[in-house]
Amino acid sequence: MLTKTEINLIKSLKDKKNRDETSLFVVEGVKMANELLAGKYDVSILYYTERYQPFVADLKYEGKKQCISEAEMSRISQLKTPTPVLALVYKPEYSCIPEKFKGELTLALDGIQDPGNLGTIIRLADWFGIKRIICSSDSVDCYNNKVIQSTMGAIFRVEVCYLQDLPDFLKRLKQNGCCLYGTFLEGECIYETKLSESGVIILGNEGKGISKSVSELVNNKLFIPPYPLSIKSSESLNVGIAAAIVCSEFRRRIL
Amino acid sequence: MLTKTEINLIKSLKDKKNRDETSLFVVEGVKMANELLAGKYDVSILYYTERYQPFVADLKYEGKKQCISEAEMSRISQLKTPTPVLALVYKPEYSCIPEKFKGELTLALDGIQDPGNLGTIIRLADWFGIKRIICSSDSVDCYNNKVIQSTMGAIFRVEVCYLQDLPDFLKRLKQNGCCLYGTFLEGECIYETKLSESGVIILGNEGKGISKSVSELVNNKLFIPPYPLSIKSSESLNVGIAAAIVCSEFRRRIL
Repeated sequence: MLTKTEINLIKSLKDKKNRDETSLFVVEGVKMANELLAGKYDVSILYYTERYQPFVADLKYEGKKQCISEAEMSRISQLKTPTPVLALVYKPEYSCIPEKFKGELTLALDGIQDPGNLGTIIRLADWFGIKRIICSSDSVDCYNNKVIQSTMGAIFRVEVCYLQDLPDFLKRLKQNGCCLYGTFLEGECIYETKLSESGVIILGNEGKGISKSVSELVNNKLFIPPYPLSIKSSESLNVGIAAAIVCSEFRRRIL
Repeated sequence: MLTKTEINLIKSLKDKKNRDETSLFVVEGVKMANELLAGKYDVSILYYTERYQPFVADLKYEGKKQCISEAEMSRISQLKTPTPVLALVYKPEYSCIPEKFKGELTLALDGIQDPGNLGTIIRLADWFGIKRIICSSDSVDCYNNKVIQSTMGAIFRVEVCYLQDLPDFLKRLKQNGCCLYGTFLEGECIYETKLSESGVIILGNEGKGISKSVSELVNNKLFIPPYPLSIKSSESLNVGIAAAIVCSEFRRRIL
């Protein structure tokens, strides 16, 4: 049986404030649990219902676990349709030093707000072998349940770091010889631009785009041309879609 | 003042069944209303609050309109934060004959379920000058409020058709000389494949991919290679992301 304190703790993790205070976040679903346990994350406790019992026995998991009723699972789940497993997991701490970025392709998120967009971008990074994503402090929290679920497990393979001062960190990367890329309407056609093998691809806020202080640092302004080439002002691309096209362009050149 | 019947009608349009019965759907927001009125859609009525009054005067709109209170707007809005304008719009009827597809690049959606994904794909089509999207009857309805809002107005420029029998229609397109493309794990590297200027790009369901009866028709199986090249079975790309990369590849070759 779950105690009231346990139930309240789990439910409280919907809010970033409580995730920050406890350093815990929630992972739900069988596929997600399998991905979690295949990674290096530190699990606080794994709750499962009887349906998941056969799987639990097969898992290489020696940590704390507890079988609960379906009714209890419904109470603690953040999903519309609860699954047979829910884990409380410790947020990892990654050191974010400029040396780590040498020779690597990295994404920098400047104020991304939509959880679905962040989840999609983390999944995209995983596909294209991008190990690290750095985010401005006003970007949506990657331990938000919607983000976690929409990464389909990629969150356990890609390091996501939040920085107090993203422009300052990007400036340091630039001083270290790192090339900074971003998409702009006045940029150069991405299909015809020479792209380096490593560097930082900056992705801006859904409504406002890349902030002024970050824009000023960009070495290479890129543009994804529409078809036909004339731009109709009303059109735009979703940030995840733009990210996909840019990442694909970087990787297709070195395959 | 809105009557109870009017309020009930507007609220009922959340459900596809009622949209189908009345042929109406809901458009909300100032930007969306501007895009709507710039297009060829038939507006049944435009509701607006006093805040929007100055804009309404500027609009080239001669149709039925009604000023309502903010409280009334809150009651009829499907958004968390109601905007100053809401329109009831007639669903357009597009004829879907194979001749229309000659020389065009088209998207075919085979069971896409997520409204956000469909909205993103419509926006993407608009950017890349794809005029037409055909959907299997089990795909999410494009007049769903979430889809409409996430298209950012692209829905008013891209024709979306639902087909009773998508495989049969694709077969007819193929007989007409149209090339059918889709992404598959066993496909050919998209970066190295010759792509035609026109054809149909098939996008599958989020979980199950492209259905068997449609797969069998595909002429060109494409593959978006991960980086590095070895595939880890747990990884995958979101359908909107895959669509973006494929559309970009088609268009980059003919710019």
